[in-house]
Amino acid sequence: MNEDVQKNKPIIRYENGELKEKTDHYVTEFPLTINVNGEEFATVICSPNHLEELVLGFLASEGAILKRDDLQSIQIDDSKGFAHVKLTHPLGERFEYSTKRMIASCCGKSRAFYFHNDAAIAKTSMTKMAIQPQQVINMMEQLQKASRIFKQTGGLHNAAISDADAFFEHRQDIGRHNALDKLYGYCIQNHIPVRDKILIFSGRISSEILLKASKIGVGMILSKSAPTTLAVELAHDLNITAIGFIRDGHFNIYSHPERIKESGNEI
Amino acid sequence: MNEDVQKNKPIIRYENGELKEKTDHYVTEFPLTINVNGEEFATVICSPNHLEELVLGFLASEGAILKRDDLQSIQIDDSKGFAHVKLTHPLGERFEYSTKRMIASCCGKSRAFYFHNDAAIAKTSMTKMAIQPQQVINMMEQLQKASRIFKQTGGLHNAAISDADAFFEHRQDIGRHNALDKLYGYCIQNHIPVRDKILIFSGRISSEILLKASKIGVGMILSKSAPTTLAVELAHDLNITAIGFIRDGHFNIYSHPERIKESGNEI
Repeated sequence: MNEDVQKNKPIIRYENGELKEKTDHYVTEFPLTINVNGEEFATVICSPNHLEELVLGFLASEGAILKRDDLQSIQIDDSKGFAHVKLTHPLGERFEYSTKRMIASCCGKSRAFYFHNDAAIAKTSMTKMAIQPQQVINMMEQLQKASRIFKQTGGLHNAAISDADAFFEHRQDIGRHNALDKLYGYCIQNHIPVRDKILIFSGRISSEILLKASKIGVGMILSKSAPTTLAVELAHDLNITAIGFIRDGHFNIYSHPERIKESGNEI
Repeated sequence: MNEDVQKNKPIIRYENGELKEKTDHYVTEFPLTINVNGEEFATVICSPNHLEELVLGFLASEGAILKRDDLQSIQIDDSKGFAHVKLTHPLGERFEYSTKRMIASCCGKSRAFYFHNDAAIAKTSMTKMAIQPQQVINMMEQLQKASRIFKQTGGLHNAAISDADAFFEHRQDIGRHNALDKLYGYCIQNHIPVRDKILIFSGRISSEILLKASKIGVGMILSKSAPTTLAVELAHDLNITAIGFIRDGHFNIYSHPERIKESGNEI
């Protein structure tokens, strides 16, 4: 498999008043088309590594699979950019209206949900975990350290999942969603329980990122940036603690602050 | 119309070892559902300003309209988040396969095009313009100045369109594509010819952004970041000059460097 998330290529550089030939690194974009049960399902533009995790996480967050056992096989053809997936069940009808906007409050969830599928798949967090402020700061530092160790591109999104203690898994992708889907796929593939895990993300917490966190099933999400208005509404509804602006030893809690305690007490 | 791209809300702040109540600004996300000829077409998550431009630019870049006159009316219902669009023609069949991946090189364009519709709508640039290196640097400085004047959020994408001289129009959105669609809509609405215009963008030039530039019809795109491998392939094919890493008086040219000349000569 092509694990390269970046490549060197020739460019023309303008510097000190002169145009000169040089080489520079580019980030790789890889279109991966996912076929499910012989039918085209979606094309994802991604960084070409951890593709099986990506497919697994993507299908789970779209609601096409609910658990590892729903999957019969995944075959990645990375020369042509295809993933051939066989499920143990047919895809079902729900994808007929997956992109339809939800107008009525038909499912008891708030209007911040704008798609039927999201409202159906998003999970309200049941975690009772609490952590200390210093652990929040430490996890963001760990993400930044992991990002530096990986690739020095600046243009890739970084995400990690942690239990605030020993467990820490990091993924990187050109697509915001893909980085999280790879982590989700990793957890499904390795039967890792997510209820008491925390997501750490390099980018802004938009409503789509918050929904992804909820679909994965975590109870907390940490970011260096602020969340959006819609993301905070969703975080309230879904019982998720959203924390942003984690930098220089301080941070902001936007929802469910009861999980941050000086004493901590992971349950 | 709600012109607010951000709002103030209460948060909990952790600082100097203490948790305290405070207010902070959030960026607004606004789901806008576009109905075309009475049918649901798409839901766009955007910053709630310049919505008519956004709808116009989005429909043009999706290929639903080709010119201003294809549009009979747009009615924005911003309390419910709907745009009701009437076209002078039916939508047509092409949207049946708009998300299907293009495998064969059925249209003479390279395999970097991964969707049928993109290959059909993307335009090869015909501009003969050339500009000076200093103009590249000036345009990026102008974008950064315009971004500062607008809102101090850091999380919004900034885009501008310019002729490298007097004309400069700036838009801002939480969505990368939306910022460009608003500019596109502005140009369509005001009958502004785009062939000899330049896009200036705050983010990375991905293949999707390069395609958007091509659909708008410009011949040059400038960015503070580097493009991706796929974006550079597309830029070569579509005769677009892609310039990145514009900072501190230097920059990199990734494709069609013939348009950057010390003497300049806009035609």
